[in-house]
Formats: sequence, structure tokens, C-alpha cells
Amino acid sequence: MSVYRDKIKLSTSGFCDIHDITAEVSGILKKSGFNQGICCVAAVGSTSAVSTIEYEPGLLKDIPRFFQSLLPDDVPYEHDKTWGDGNGFSHMRSFLLKTSATIPFNDGKLDLGTWQQIVYLDFDNRSRRREITVQLIGE
Amino acid sequence: MSVYRDKIKLSTSGFCDIHDITAEVSGILKKSGFNQGICCVAAVGSTSAVSTIEYEPGLLKDIPRFFQSLLPDDVPYEHDKTWGDGNGFSHMRSFLLKTSATIPFNDGKLDLGTWQQIVYLDFDNRSRRREITVQLIGE
Amino acid sequence: MSVYRDKIKLSTSGFCDIHDITAEVSGILKKSGFNQGICCVAAVGSTSAVSTIEYEPGLLKDIPRFFQSLLPDDVPYEHDKTWGDGNGFSHMRSFLLKTSATIPFNDGKLDLGTWQQIVYLDFDNRSRRREITVQLIGE
Repeated sequence: MSVYRDKIKLSTSGFCDIHDITAEVSGILKKSGFNQGICCVAAVGSTSAVSTIEYEPGLLKDIPRFFQSLLPDDVPYEHDKTWGDGNGFSHMRSFLLKTSATIPFNDGKLDLGTWQQIVYLDFDNRSRRREITVQLIGE
Repeated sequence: MSVYRDKIKLSTSGFCDIHDITAEVSGILKKSGFNQGICCVAAVGSTSAVSTIEYEPGLLKDIPRFFQSLLPDDVPYEHDKTWGDGNGFSHMRSFLLKTSATIPFNDGKLDLGTWQQIVYLDFDNRSRRREITVQLIGE
Repeated sequence: MSVYRDKIKLSTSGFCDIHDITAEVSGILKKSGFNQGICCVAAVGSTSAVSTIEYEPGLLKDIPRFFQSLLPDDVPYEHDKTWGDGNGFSHMRSFLLKTSATIPFNDGKLDLGTWQQIVYLDFDNRSRRREITVQLIGE
């Protein structure tokens, strides 16, 4: 048993920009040489999140619509009074969805369905350079 | 430290069908012989989820009502245009709640409250045969 | 690789009482002596949750408002019929946000952004004495 760690780097455009990072995470698992364990995919910061979806064009429209309805980007938040950066909605969406996801793996493969991809969601209100931590515990 | 892995098999009816899987997860922990570590309970696929609730008849009505209000099963989703399978709501609910939960254990027992059960939620729009992965890291 | 475990004790006032527990979690990591691994922060029970936010006064108002809008504390829930304790909203909020969060660490430090804190949210409808489990797997 040991730990293997790597980072994924992304350029994002914000406002619920959704990236499929499954190939990158699987690549890190392969490099680790681990057969079995758990994989923690964690965004650093408080305006983005990690989850899994079927990565297809329909859901890439449904998800931003859902967040715009639940936590709109054009209404005032108290957070905006603290910093004036206008991204209260980004913080709230990240808080709700959370910044990490944990996925088991076996036989060197992540436990994902055929139509299940790991996604990174950038909720901020501007383009960013992002780093995502992939931390494996396994053997 | 090592990894122990097993699966739980379920027949589900979809549309927010909620199953208490605490006894099955605890049984796998017992079989592992582990004393201390963390347990990752992970649904495979993108139309179901894992969380914890007090498993009692009231919440088994409140939860489907909540999802029907937040992500109704009778409104159109863009996802439905991709495949025509009409389960956009299932994908959205699974995405929001996420497909895995991680629970520590100690003295061979899961860190759960007396009124806290691990639940698997099937959000799909049809009955399914499901497998849930239980992956333990411990000693 | 081994497991290190400790508890955080809190007095909470309920109704979306939000506590920054980052210093306590970091202190436990330091005591463990671990350099690299993953940290599972888990609330026991079904009326509280763990997530990460930028812990600042604005979001401490935005978050309770959001939950009051999504899962109000002054409407009836079926759960309330089971026990008569009137905290159906607390259970629903805990179920949605989930009771644990998993965070990688490296070089003895949690993978958190500068403006990202670990928070414990008590959703119950009364003051409580609470215990939060911090379980580290690392080396």
C-alpha cells in the first residue's frame, strides 16, 4: 500500500464550464502501477467542483441551466459585498456540489460505468488556470 | 494496510427507489476482518447515487417529493434529445447527489449514528439489476 | 501506510450553524506525523454535513438563505409525522449535502486553497454537542 499523486492542469472559461477529465485520471492510475485502491479527485479552491456524469451534449446544456435556475449568476449574494468580485453564485455552487469525488479502482481500472465520466466544473466568473489533485491510495 | 473489495447486488424499480444497504456494507466490513480504515460505497453508472439518511417511512416520501420538485421527471431535458431514453432527470439527480459516499470505520464498526443508514437511490426510469462496489482501505 | 484517527468536539446551535474546523483538522494531520495521504472528515448522525467554503461573513448569510429557500424549516415534512421532532428539514439538508468530505494531503498539508475552509454545518433544530471524526490514511 502506498500513495501516488499527480495533478491535472486545465484552462477553463468559468460560468459552469464542464471538462471531462476521465482520460487524465485513468492515465495517472496507469502511471501509478496500482491494481486496487481508491482514487480521490480534488479541486483546490472554492469556486469549482468534481462529480461524474454521462458526458454528452444534452447534459452539458442541462447542468448549466439547472444551476442558473437554482443559484443564478445574476442575483445579488452577500458574498459579493465582502470582496466585490461578483462570484457569490460560484461559491454557492461549489459548496453544494463539493470539490472532490472518490472512486474505487480494481484491476487497474476505475469503477465507472461505460457512460459515466469524471467531470471538473468551473463555476467562477472568469477564465482561470486550474490544477486538480489526483491522489491514489492503493497497491 | 490493504484493500478489501466486494459488491452488493440489488433489484431496483427506479424513480427514486431508496434502499437501505447498511447491513450489507457492515457485513462486508466484518468479512474483511479490518479494524480501522475508510469505506467507499460507490454506485457504478450515472443514474443512481449513494448517501446517508435516517431510513424511516417519512423521509422515504420526503426525498422523492424533493427531487420531483427540484428536478422533475415530467419536464423535457436536453439529455433526452441525445438518446431518447427520457431519463434526463435521473442523470441530473445522480450528478447532484453523486455516486459515492466515504465513511470511516473503527473497532470494526462504521462511523454511523444510531439513526443513520447508508442508502442507495436508483433514479432511473425503469427497473434495473444494480451492483454497488464496497471498497475498504484498512488494517 | 497506516490509519490515524481523532475527533473534533463542538457545541452547535442548529438551524444551519456553520463552523470552520480547518485548524482542528490541520492540527490532527500534524499530530499524525503523516506526510501524504487522504483525510476523511465525517459527521456522525443524519442532521449535519461537511463541505468546504470560503469562510467569510457573506457566505455565512448566503448559505442559510439558500437552504431556507430550497428546504424551508417552516413547512411540514413527512418525517415530522414519524417522530414529532419537527426536524425533517434538517434531515433533508444533511442528506443532500452529505455528512463527509474527503481531502488529499501532501507535505503534511491539506490540499485546500487559501480561501477554502472545511466547514461543519449543523442543520438540527436545537443546540447539540457534536463529535466529528477525522480519519487519515497515509504515510
